Amino acid sequence: MITRAEILDIKSLATKHGREELGAFIAEGEKLVGEIRNSSLRIRRILQTKPIFSEGEMISEKEMERISQLKTANSVLAVVELPRHSLAKAQPAKNLVLALDRVQNPGNLGTIIRLADWFGISDIVCSEDTADCFNPKVVQATMGAILRVRVHYTNLAEWLSKQNTNIYGTFLEGENIYSAQLDKTGVIVMGNEGQGISAEVAENVSHKLLIPPYPAERCGSESLNVAIATAVICSEFRRR
Amino acid sequence: MITRAEILDIKSLATKHGREELGAFIAEGEKLVGEIRNSSLRIRRILQTKPIFSEGEMISEKEMERISQLKTANSVLAVVELPRHSLAKAQPAKNLVLALDRVQNPGNLGTIIRLADWFGISDIVCSEDTADCFNPKVVQATMGAILRVRVHYTNLAEWLSKQNTNIYGTFLEGENIYSAQLDKTGVIVMGNEGQGISAEVAENVSHKLLIPPYPAERCGSESLNVAIATAVICSEFRRR
Repeated sequence: MITRAEILDIKSLATKHGREELGAFIAEGEKLVGEIRNSSLRIRRILQTKPIFSEGEMISEKEMERISQLKTANSVLAVVELPRHSLAKAQPAKNLVLALDRVQNPGNLGTIIRLADWFGISDIVCSEDTADCFNPKVVQATMGAILRVRVHYTNLAEWLSKQNTNIYGTFLEGENIYSAQLDKTGVIVMGNEGQGISAEVAENVSHKLLIPPYPAERCGSESLNVAIATAVICSEFRRR
Repeated sequence: MITRAEILDIKSLATKHGREELGAFIAEGEKLVGEIRNSSLRIRRILQTKPIFSEGEMISEKEMERISQLKTANSVLAVVELPRHSLAKAQPAKNLVLALDRVQNPGNLGTIIRLADWFGISDIVCSEDTADCFNPKVVQATMGAILRVRVHYTNLAEWLSKQNTNIYGTFLEGENIYSAQLDKTGVIVMGNEGQGISAEVAENVSHKLLIPPYPAERCGSESLNVAIATAVICSEFRRR
């Protein structure tokens, strides 16, 4: 059983303000919570409607429905302490780092974190107005990758200006990515869903790239979804 | 102004049953409706809260909110006749064709249609239990690509068994896609979000491929989102 005040606290974790105030986020589902138990993250409490985890507290299905952020509530929900990652760990001179400039859609962000994990990218540096990676929709879309990829928030243009390495970004006037020279290290900047990379951030890009449509002269879709473009670019960097 | 019966009819287009009964689907937003006006699709009526299109009928914002399928209603909504595409147009011996085996998530399907358009794939052949491409969420996620890509529904295993061409699919035991030989034509089969390609469909796959994680020996995410995997594969086919 949980008290009404506890239910309100957990529900408040759906917003960034609530997460910052309580220093925690929520994760749902047996698989994800199981992975968190085996990770370095600290779990504050596990609530469950079935006896799944030994330390889990039993609650009713009605209570679970009230605290769940999913359309169809799962049988386990964990309240997890927000991890604090040092931005100094993002070292684009040693490994590829992704940089996100105002990516707004939680589903896109979650998908990008998941594919970064697949392609061996450990750090994502985001502009402060990028969607929050501990938004429940993002956490679920990462399918556990949020436990392995460090997501940082900072003044992106300023951080980029201090990186003494290749900074790649996609632009309509960029070089064909399939024939461009790509290094094994550096930063790959991806922009907002509608507006792309902001002028301030673009100033720091040293290598402009383009994913060419096929065939090159046809006039179909004007752009790719940002998560799709990120995947094509990461695949191309890792293939070589 | 629209009548209550008309509102109910339009709302019924949110379901597959309703769309099939009335032979129509809905599209929202000035950009998308504008593209449909310039396409070969037939528009039954345009409803708008501002004078945007000359043939548009004015309705109130309250009425628009009632018929809209978006979280935030737009100022234009069109009722469009369902196009009928002949499956005979899907010719994998002449151009790459995508095949989807039980892709369930509307967002994934919409994103796949959009990227197919980008990579010059004109036909997508789906199993009958794949999400419906005229679901409003799919239509919006395609960003207009639904007007250019033909999406077919059929018994997928049976259709594949009749194609006398290369049939590619991704499997854990597949060949590294970056070094595999890839033809300019054939079928690329993508599977369900959780279960992958069904046994019945897999029987028809002649070339098993794998997108390798990076680095190959690490143990991170177990899989890629289906739309992301489709993008990486299409990019790799088109790059060559």
